[in-house]
Amino acid sequence: MRTMGRQLSLNAFLHDTGHHEASWRHPESGAERVGDITWYQDLARRAEAAKLDAVFLADGPVWWGTGHRPSNQFEPITLLTALATATEKIGLIATASTSYYAPYNLARLFGSLDRISGGRAGWNIVTTQGDEAAANFGQDRAADPATRYERAQEFVDVITKLWDSWEDDAEVVDRTSGVFVDTAKVHAINHVGKHLSVKGPFNAPRTPQGRPVYVQAGSSNDGRNFAGRNAEAIFTAHQTLADAQAFYADIKAKAVGFGRDPESVKVLPGISPFIGDTEAEARELYEEFNRLTVPAYGLKQLEGIAGISLSHLELDEPVPADIFGGAGNVLDNNRSRLQVVANIVERDRPTVRQLLHRLAGGRGHNVVHGTPVQIADTIQEWFEGGAADGFNVLPPLYPQHLDAFTSKVVPILQERGLFRTEYTGSTLREHYGLDRPVSQYAEQSAAADAS
Amino acid sequence: MRTMGRQLSLNAFLHDTGHHEASWRHPESGAERVGDITWYQDLARRAEAAKLDAVFLADGPVWWGTGHRPSNQFEPITLLTALATATEKIGLIATASTSYYAPYNLARLFGSLDRISGGRAGWNIVTTQGDEAAANFGQDRAADPATRYERAQEFVDVITKLWDSWEDDAEVVDRTSGVFVDTAKVHAINHVGKHLSVKGPFNAPRTPQGRPVYVQAGSSNDGRNFAGRNAEAIFTAHQTLADAQAFYADIKAKAVGFGRDPESVKVLPGISPFIGDTEAEARELYEEFNRLTVPAYGLKQLEGIAGISLSHLELDEPVPADIFGGAGNVLDNNRSRLQVVANIVERDRPTVRQLLHRLAGGRGHNVVHGTPVQIADTIQEWFEGGAADGFNVLPPLYPQHLDAFTSKVVPILQERGLFRTEYTGSTLREHYGLDRPVSQYAEQSAAADAS
Repeated sequence: MRTMGRQLSLNAFLHDTGHHEASWRHPESGAERVGDITWYQDLARRAEAAKLDAVFLADGPVWWGTGHRPSNQFEPITLLTALATATEKIGLIATASTSYYAPYNLARLFGSLDRISGGRAGWNIVTTQGDEAAANFGQDRAADPATRYERAQEFVDVITKLWDSWEDDAEVVDRTSGVFVDTAKVHAINHVGKHLSVKGPFNAPRTPQGRPVYVQAGSSNDGRNFAGRNAEAIFTAHQTLADAQAFYADIKAKAVGFGRDPESVKVLPGISPFIGDTEAEARELYEEFNRLTVPAYGLKQLEGIAGISLSHLELDEPVPADIFGGAGNVLDNNRSRLQVVANIVERDRPTVRQLLHRLAGGRGHNVVHGTPVQIADTIQEWFEGGAADGFNVLPPLYPQHLDAFTSKVVPILQERGLFRTEYTGSTLREHYGLDRPVSQYAEQSAAADAS
Repeated sequence: MRTMGRQLSLNAFLHDTGHHEASWRHPESGAERVGDITWYQDLARRAEAAKLDAVFLADGPVWWGTGHRPSNQFEPITLLTALATATEKIGLIATASTSYYAPYNLARLFGSLDRISGGRAGWNIVTTQGDEAAANFGQDRAADPATRYERAQEFVDVITKLWDSWEDDAEVVDRTSGVFVDTAKVHAINHVGKHLSVKGPFNAPRTPQGRPVYVQAGSSNDGRNFAGRNAEAIFTAHQTLADAQAFYADIKAKAVGFGRDPESVKVLPGISPFIGDTEAEARELYEEFNRLTVPAYGLKQLEGIAGISLSHLELDEPVPADIFGGAGNVLDNNRSRLQVVANIVERDRPTVRQLLHRLAGGRGHNVVHGTPVQIADTIQEWFEGGAADGFNVLPPLYPQHLDAFTSKVVPILQERGLFRTEYTGSTLREHYGLDRPVSQYAEQSAAADAS
């Protein structure tokens, strides 16, 4: 290691053929392989070879109904389990919904992933907006955001108790006495709350990390408060340094407000880099992908964010200045994303087609194009400028653009002493520099013993 | 292949250190490794090397509260995912509850396992008795058996529709037109029923097997009806040939009553073999394990089955003849197990200690001890005598007793032309000789096209 200074966290956000919405149409895409588990195992191995902190999977328990992109072929926790067995060090973060899972089931799934992977699991905690998902779980409509976040907080409290319910030394495995488990160190949680009642205890010993790393990705007001209280890593979308700095300061202040160490909350904006050996080459790569887009698909996605019809717009006319200022039927989690879009319109006055191209790469995440040094400079500027503790990297095309990032940008970051050249730990908590939590029941037992 | 006659199906029922309740206390047990995924991967590879049909995992979403045995360290579907990546051919059957899962979530988990494994998933469908499990899911008490099975039937109907909702050729992946999915071949299921409302469609393409193999293991009256209607493989516990024959005939008749081919329902009793080169050696092995038991643990298990207190009994006195005939608080799924126990008492007049030993090996499953030829003879007798289509094998100690079975008994069965020497298929359906189901929506589309 050239340095022991503050280090970047870098995740690879996995997404079928890549994050650009038209990536699967690229002649060299893996469109035919997205249902093949070895496709994802290969991507995870590449990310691990570059010493990235983690791979990440988004998720929603619903089909989005589009014929223009691959759908998820795998459920994320089982997918990450298959990646766990194909890798040794890299963290494994899956998204799962507090609205549509029972905490006991989800505790078992993530607990098992944490054990199988030797302590590499992370849980991206989402509340899942939208009535389409609700309709797959017996509900006509999704609960309102405040209620969803209220349940999410109770869910996190309950699942944390389940993961804490076995003290670390509960298993004694004494052949002579016939005692496998010291039952005094296994605790019922006896939770009875507004949304959930769970007796416990958990049905397995404490996991290698104590509990998975808690991740959060919503930027709504409720989402930020939830993140400040619970999250250990936050994925977020910003187009400008100034926006990212404001968000970063807000989250860290919220964490402090909840009595937490701001260092224990990693803020990781998304970045989707088109990398060329020259600026012109990078720009041409970006434009090549945008030429592959299906405008009707992009327009439908944008309508989904804005909650209004846009089908009357001409593709090569400027976007009307005030179109995203009206009172569309905007879902809560989409408000911050819509603000990103409105800011682009106000700042850059794009045509409809240009706006769709801006969104095609990363659905509101920061799409950049440039030389490896330019990309590294941007990363360093955000990292040292109070905007980021690291990045969630969204390669437009897998694996080619992940490889371009890891082979050309990562070495520059390593050279500058900003990123590891070898793993120094073997759990996701260790990669992120997070403590392993003490079981709240072990703490209570210790306090009782001391009194 | 020496023969193409009717073939045995043989599963390895995985269970921490082995099925004998005291197996973990054996000096050569893997007690320290049951939290290590490579322990199970090694067992699955051994079972696959012997060309067994499948490995099987029991499950309940609850901690049984005993300090005298290892608990499940892994959630079964994630565990089997890790086994899928360590093997190539062997089937992977996990137990999951229709009472405590949402069908959309479970469809995703098993669908993903089926895809990751290349078509090797089986689902052991249980309704989960007992108030302890209910209390982990917001319920004071478990629903009564009739209600649980009513929901189970609706659950199976819904999850089958979800797995059928993508026709096999829905994915077109046409780069030129920009069409990845033919949305006309993806169908909402629009289920609104008494227990469940699920709109669908599923959010992933149809899985390799169309759907996992449906397995069932309850022997209650409700359970048998459910099995006759839905199950493609049935795990069951019988101590005598006559009892097994009666069950076999009943299940096949029930399947026919539901309009099904009786060949499409495989009846697989459990067998837990202690194998010795001589009869005396086998008997001594059996007794060696029984000497390791903790009587208090065995008594507690028996109390759980019988629903009455037994703590007043003397270990070395005969079991009172009528003790299991009274009106204990017997859970429905335990009735058939309790009948097995009552039959042992009536037939063999054991002491309490002897009865506990009889149950210690397989919790009511058929524990046998003998030479390899004797074990093979029993298997053949049941297989050819209308009592079994194969067996769920419960080795008392893993891996030693699995190895004894596969190295000494399986070759005899192969020599007799009763069991494969090589896999002839690569999916669990192929191993069991079951058809791949046609999507009900594809059938409807075909019918509409033809009219």
